[in-house]
Amino acid sequence: MVKANNAYQIDVITGENTYPVYVGEGLLEHCSFVFEQLATRQVLMVSNETVAPLYMDKLLNAMPDVETDCLILKDGEQYKNFTSLQKIYDKLIDGRYHRDSYLIALGGGVVGDITGFAASTYQRGIAYIQIPTTLLAQVDASVGGKTAINHPLGKNMIGSFYQPEAVVIDVNTLRTLPEREFKAGLAEVIKYALLHGGTFFDTLYQQLEEGIDASDIEVLKPLIAKCCRIKADIVRQDEKETGLRALLNLGHTFAHALETLSAYKRWLHGEAVAIGLYCAVLLSVKLGYAKLSLAEKVAHMLSCAGLAYKIPVGIDVEQLCDKMMLDKKIKDKRLQFVLLEAPGACFLNSEVPERLLKETLIEAFEGD
Amino acid sequence: MVKANNAYQIDVITGENTYPVYVGEGLLEHCSFVFEQLATRQVLMVSNETVAPLYMDKLLNAMPDVETDCLILKDGEQYKNFTSLQKIYDKLIDGRYHRDSYLIALGGGVVGDITGFAASTYQRGIAYIQIPTTLLAQVDASVGGKTAINHPLGKNMIGSFYQPEAVVIDVNTLRTLPEREFKAGLAEVIKYALLHGGTFFDTLYQQLEEGIDASDIEVLKPLIAKCCRIKADIVRQDEKETGLRALLNLGHTFAHALETLSAYKRWLHGEAVAIGLYCAVLLSVKLGYAKLSLAEKVAHMLSCAGLAYKIPVGIDVEQLCDKMMLDKKIKDKRLQFVLLEAPGACFLNSEVPERLLKETLIEAFEGD
Repeated sequence: MVKANNAYQIDVITGENTYPVYVGEGLLEHCSFVFEQLATRQVLMVSNETVAPLYMDKLLNAMPDVETDCLILKDGEQYKNFTSLQKIYDKLIDGRYHRDSYLIALGGGVVGDITGFAASTYQRGIAYIQIPTTLLAQVDASVGGKTAINHPLGKNMIGSFYQPEAVVIDVNTLRTLPEREFKAGLAEVIKYALLHGGTFFDTLYQQLEEGIDASDIEVLKPLIAKCCRIKADIVRQDEKETGLRALLNLGHTFAHALETLSAYKRWLHGEAVAIGLYCAVLLSVKLGYAKLSLAEKVAHMLSCAGLAYKIPVGIDVEQLCDKMMLDKKIKDKRLQFVLLEAPGACFLNSEVPERLLKETLIEAFEGD
Repeated sequence: MVKANNAYQIDVITGENTYPVYVGEGLLEHCSFVFEQLATRQVLMVSNETVAPLYMDKLLNAMPDVETDCLILKDGEQYKNFTSLQKIYDKLIDGRYHRDSYLIALGGGVVGDITGFAASTYQRGIAYIQIPTTLLAQVDASVGGKTAINHPLGKNMIGSFYQPEAVVIDVNTLRTLPEREFKAGLAEVIKYALLHGGTFFDTLYQQLEEGIDASDIEVLKPLIAKCCRIKADIVRQDEKETGLRALLNLGHTFAHALETLSAYKRWLHGEAVAIGLYCAVLLSVKLGYAKLSLAEKVAHMLSCAGLAYKIPVGIDVEQLCDKMMLDKKIKDKRLQFVLLEAPGACFLNSEVPERLLKETLIEAFEGD
């Protein structure tokens, strides 16, 4: 297998298989090496109406010997549903795709999640390749094999753990990413820095102070590769999220509550994660695990990334707290938080008192 | 773990886990040992309107400390669809079932397949237990983790490989099984005898000559356990059907074509398999692999089981052959047959000439 020049390769090792994540510049034009082994198979490429016009032709040119069909979904989280899934199934069945066919997901997290889920369930599982085009999907969603669709009553309620054959990350695609989405992706990058700590955290801190934009390829390439490496390391140890992998939910307990409360309309996922990260650090401070200076540091990083980190006016903090606690009271479930002592020292905690949670939310609130 | 007296236990070993299959009499009343480890969890039992009135209360009594909710689906292959699947999801989400909940499938293959698929995809996978109540599900569908629903354009097109935590087979449930369904189940038993050969084949031959009915518990218990053991052995070696496991499709290439041609209305699956088994042996004879006497033997066994084995009047043999060959011509797919030299000596073959296939079908036709 010949690899594009200067591309990073991270191998994700799971119980069932090992697959490569390539991170490089111009990989869309130079990714034929990925398809070589799969050349004789039938391929269905799934994308959305925003990404397809930008990159689909480029990708098709890179795989000239492959018989490829395309399916273009509408763009947006609200289309990560049964209707879109059925469209993929229908296309596969109409086209008489067999078990040795494969799918390509070209797009952001929505396209990746739904295509992965279709791959995991069509004829009890066919191969698929992730080609993420948003920063958020590149550093997080495309690696690790979590697939899902949303149910009207809950996000990602239907899904599977199903690993791709390969992940191809072309950082050049970030050049066309709307700025708001790029910034939202930086929230997940900051999450990885908090999880990993060390020089990665310090370097990112500095880079954010200097400013990172989507055309800083030489900064972004190693940054994305590092996030993928951290994730791969966690997934290797706990593919099905029975423990360790839950650390990747740092900031997400808050983020999900915020997203639900606003019916997923107010924020991009990464934007909600930004607020969630700040809340998680603040809660860690309140519980005596972390120093206040860490909360200030994280707030500064999020600001530098252009991300709001306070719970904004318009959100009823009491209601937010009740919502989180209500979930906790159901059956034996306990509301689980990822807390941290310092960058690189995160842990799970299911024993957060309601009072401290509320204090945290009030403190994170930007109003008054 | 205390096991019911005189129950067989077969362990199914797969890459991800190992689980027990219990085969015994009165297990529905005495299966609390299966649930002991799961006692604190939330349980949703899925059944159908035929089986639920007969056995649901019995089972609920056996698990008094478990908080159990029930969902009763309509009975029939036509309900193994997205609508039924959604009913399970809705019930799970409405009831706020968590990732540590589990499902119980109480019924035949349809209930087992759809419940298993729901379990494999709800919140990326929760546990489930199979409690099959038809002979076909007991000897075949409930063991090995194949889950599925039908797509309007194809049977079992959407599904997964997802192993249960346990399979509980109470042979007493066969006493209420309609005779036609019992006989259909015997077709799969004969399939296992052909796959395995040896004394199992000889003994079954004799037992069928003497007549087996649904109340012959002492005959059925070891028979079912043996089929499960054969299947477990194959699944252990090839869980995801990349090779060996395809042998379990003996007779099924024909059966599927017959079922499709008749829009799944004319036969129970096992009845189509009966004809398929006869055709597979006949084709093996025609290709010079098996002796004609084997075809006669198999025909005799199927007759003794009360199963028609000839392609009946009303089926257009030309059309059947065209249908099978058409499938073959699509893309690189080849029509794969399981052939045999003798009981216990089966193999895969993708090189059957159309002419011989047609001759076989004509010879298996009962008309003229």
